[in-house]
Amino acid sequence: MKILAICGSLRKESFNKGALRAAIEVAPKGIEIETFDIGVLPLSNQDFEKKMPKVALDFKEKIKNADAILFVTPEYNYSISGVLKNAIDWSSRPYGDNSWEAKPAAIMGVGVGPKGTVRAQIHLRQMFIFLNIFALNRPEVMIDATGKFDENGNLTDEETKDRISELLKALAAWTQKLS
Amino acid sequence: MKILAICGSLRKESFNKGALRAAIEVAPKGIEIETFDIGVLPLSNQDFEKKMPKVALDFKEKIKNADAILFVTPEYNYSISGVLKNAIDWSSRPYGDNSWEAKPAAIMGVGVGPKGTVRAQIHLRQMFIFLNIFALNRPEVMIDATGKFDENGNLTDEETKDRISELLKALAAWTQKLS
Amino acid sequence: MKILAICGSLRKESFNKGALRAAIEVAPKGIEIETFDIGVLPLSNQDFEKKMPKVALDFKEKIKNADAILFVTPEYNYSISGVLKNAIDWSSRPYGDNSWEAKPAAIMGVGVGPKGTVRAQIHLRQMFIFLNIFALNRPEVMIDATGKFDENGNLTDEETKDRISELLKALAAWTQKLS
Amino acid sequence: MKILAICGSLRKESFNKGALRAAIEVAPKGIEIETFDIGVLPLSNQDFEKKMPKVALDFKEKIKNADAILFVTPEYNYSISGVLKNAIDWSSRPYGDNSWEAKPAAIMGVGVGPKGTVRAQIHLRQMFIFLNIFALNRPEVMIDATGKFDENGNLTDEETKDRISELLKALAAWTQKLS
Repeated sequence: MKILAICGSLRKESFNKGALRAAIEVAPKGIEIETFDIGVLPLSNQDFEKKMPKVALDFKEKIKNADAILFVTPEYNYSISGVLKNAIDWSSRPYGDNSWEAKPAAIMGVGVGPKGTVRAQIHLRQMFIFLNIFALNRPEVMIDATGKFDENGNLTDEETKDRISELLKALAAWTQKLS
Repeated sequence: MKILAICGSLRKESFNKGALRAAIEVAPKGIEIETFDIGVLPLSNQDFEKKMPKVALDFKEKIKNADAILFVTPEYNYSISGVLKNAIDWSSRPYGDNSWEAKPAAIMGVGVGPKGTVRAQIHLRQMFIFLNIFALNRPEVMIDATGKFDENGNLTDEETKDRISELLKALAAWTQKLS
Repeated sequence: MKILAICGSLRKESFNKGALRAAIEVAPKGIEIETFDIGVLPLSNQDFEKKMPKVALDFKEKIKNADAILFVTPEYNYSISGVLKNAIDWSSRPYGDNSWEAKPAAIMGVGVGPKGTVRAQIHLRQMFIFLNIFALNRPEVMIDATGKFDENGNLTDEETKDRISELLKALAAWTQKLS
Repeated sequence: MKILAICGSLRKESFNKGALRAAIEVAPKGIEIETFDIGVLPLSNQDFEKKMPKVALDFKEKIKNADAILFVTPEYNYSISGVLKNAIDWSSRPYGDNSWEAKPAAIMGVGVGPKGTVRAQIHLRQMFIFLNIFALNRPEVMIDATGKFDENGNLTDEETKDRISELLKALAAWTQKLS
């Protein structure tokens, strides 16, 4: 099973990047996690849809080839990052070629503080309605970064790693059910 | 009174750009509408906060100097555009230097179809809570583009222009009340 | 296949009640639609959970026995009705006995005007995350009542009836997939 | 200054009721907090709008006479309670007689766990758009009940009390600004 994981933060020592690395590390056997760096995309502009930039086409291809999607989202200003939304905007276009169509998905997010990306995840789910993405309801993985990462941004908290592993297992089962 | 207007679409013949031009055209006396092209901003990355790109600093300056803000938003994937969110992410940072603090604001949006950006506007308002922006509740300006724009993307519908003019008057009164 | 349909409006000539009657009328063969009148429930109060009112227990039983759920929702004050929320609150309790667990579901709603319950449906979907309800993304059935109902509140518009029929077919297929 | 405070929970030992009592206790001089027990309202039904129940009329009167509103909300199923929504539905009607028109407001809420009613508060704010209520953005008061209440449901945590006091002061200043 091939899962495409996308991280909404570009910061080098991003906690969300660290959580994504942890997901790759704890992925159950049989689950392969690929990533795509959405920081390479230009700002989305529908004028360029007839001749899409190669990076956008590559991104669309990656999504289509994946069996399921893992969104790893920070929360900026009570929503997902502009960077992540920009990637979603490219890949849902042009009209009639939504790369996300009917994909199973799961969400996790890291923030500093106890609210842990709850508002960003709600916004993401609203986008899923239009994109026709089928997301797991549970487990909800909203991580408070405090004390859980080392100085290189690696997740060190074992309980959180277990939770991420559970999420991946649930996503695998969900993907099988929907296939 | 100086209003900064920001359009969330980069498309050349964007209906939202057309609606913004109409706003400039119908602005009541005493209201000056400035704009900023958020398409010049790179993708937001917190690693560059200590040495922010000049365009981001310019944007922040424009916001701070405005008496009020007019958001002109398309709806992509049931939310605001990544382009607009990216601009918001730059300008709310670095930590402790949120350029939007306590600004009065109004929202308008153009979409194709009767829902007219209702979902994008809701997301924008959720961001306002964090940004501490005080937005008008009414009039809600959600424009169905169908039949209201000419081939150059200019708004031609007089009733809609009146509605935009009303919005600007309400924003001016609201700004005065909050000052 | 047994679908439980719940209408969020108590008004006698409610358009949403009319839409629900239309759903019963156009239901494809093999789909039986049952209803429950949530107007018989008292206001939800967790003090009575140890000795739940019989009507609340009956409601919970109906939900559990259904293969899938059809929510028929008006929009009051940009959300679902208090009446519908109250029914959801009773039936999700007591702690550990959420009657909605893992149910497939679909949503339709009628409002006066082109926005047609879009905001109410978004709120309902947010509740589904907690309730662990799996809702269809499409078709989205948001009906503008204008000119589509007779003086007794019966739906007369054939195109809308077809859309409701499509929704039921999609719900049946979705329920089968998830079973 | 007269503030009307409404609590969305009917449970006798409700933490939210406890937080409301704390608000009355710590209210700065010059602020009088009145309450209304929304548990006395029947389920909202637009058929009874021409001859509204006396309790609904009383509630509407209380709202109109208040200078500002304090919403004290639990979170049930990731939204406000049906009980609170029901009260809002009565008081916004009949058409053309929305009792909340242009009222200044503040929100606080208590939940068990670190998310502390964040999702309920977002839904409430979406209703405010339609109701034309002007709510404070800050301070956001989302209380995790754990360890902060005694066995009678009284708030004992001094830091939380200070926060509630700050909220009331901010609401008073906001009400003055908008008057």
